[in-house]
Amino acid sequence: MQIPSKVLDEAIEAFSRLPGIGQKSALRMVLHLLKTPADEVEHFGEVLQRLRKDLRYCRNCHNITAGDLCDICSDPRRDRSTVCVVEDIRDVIAIENTSSYKGLYHVLGGLISPMDGIGPSQLNIESLCDKSGRGEVQEVIAALSTTMEGDTTLFYLYKKLKPYAVRISTLARGVAIGGALEYADEVTLGRSIINRVPYENHLVK
Amino acid sequence: MQIPSKVLDEAIEAFSRLPGIGQKSALRMVLHLLKTPADEVEHFGEVLQRLRKDLRYCRNCHNITAGDLCDICSDPRRDRSTVCVVEDIRDVIAIENTSSYKGLYHVLGGLISPMDGIGPSQLNIESLCDKSGRGEVQEVIAALSTTMEGDTTLFYLYKKLKPYAVRISTLARGVAIGGALEYADEVTLGRSIINRVPYENHLVK
Repeated sequence: MQIPSKVLDEAIEAFSRLPGIGQKSALRMVLHLLKTPADEVEHFGEVLQRLRKDLRYCRNCHNITAGDLCDICSDPRRDRSTVCVVEDIRDVIAIENTSSYKGLYHVLGGLISPMDGIGPSQLNIESLCDKSGRGEVQEVIAALSTTMEGDTTLFYLYKKLKPYAVRISTLARGVAIGGALEYADEVTLGRSIINRVPYENHLVK
Repeated sequence: MQIPSKVLDEAIEAFSRLPGIGQKSALRMVLHLLKTPADEVEHFGEVLQRLRKDLRYCRNCHNITAGDLCDICSDPRRDRSTVCVVEDIRDVIAIENTSSYKGLYHVLGGLISPMDGIGPSQLNIESLCDKSGRGEVQEVIAALSTTMEGDTTLFYLYKKLKPYAVRISTLARGVAIGGALEYADEVTLGRSIINRVPYENHLVK
């Protein structure tokens, strides 16, 4: 693609480095920005420049924060004995939106994936072991994807946390609420029969 | 969606205003930027801020340019008697990439669309009439989409340019080169039979 101007080319290049954005979508975005008010575009640029300056990772759980500890870790009402281990910050946001969890989090920053060259040392696993070693944590809930990478990471965590007095649990797997049985995949449906739950459990909110 | 930080929220907001980007994709992009090197993100922000300052629209054809006239309009080798009318800059880039056209362009900046509240006065039509009135233009090639809006705009241009000594032509419509006949839609296929072309025309490069 021949681009008529250097700034335009640089902007398309920057956008097309974002996940899921190709050259054509990037061009569409830049042309959209050329039509939006100048001060709005300037604000966009300013926000991007502040993004890396103002945001850092929480010292305790590696969530995003503006300060030293994130809002969740510094909230005295949260249960500090339960830690929910997640892959990245999107999972924290998703679980927070359910309002069903009152413990703390621990963001791994990825999953073990030898194919992508990601080993345990690149993830925030050491700091989780440290926390468990200090006896602060009673239960670790592994809220990881049920993929090859998620299962590998879960098994690694299980091995690593075994020496400490920590209960390890995983998310309940089963047929989605509101989902029709016929659309559930066979593995999930099969597992949901084996791990069936007493009816009384559903009555508890 | 509850976002843990204000800068993060602003960044997601800015991204989700782009065409085709929802809240979840915007979050994915911002988290991607948080993982990329800080100087790269800063450069991204800088490019966005320069975008509106450095770029303007060509005085003659409304294409994007860094100066007063765009590269195409200021190129003495281009044929100034032929003007290709297009909807936006993406079409200029697409046609330039074919290397089959040596005339000038005229970017309308949209199509007439009463449904979206876009009338002829919001488009760059007056300046096209001015050019035609000055006798600079011999042929206007309307390279517009064959949609309701494209056809409406074409008809309006036809009416407006009728008083001037200007030939008006449109792009050839027909079965795509390399396309199997069975996948062509009926309207296109029907039109391509009616507007069939002598075999000798295909031999001319």
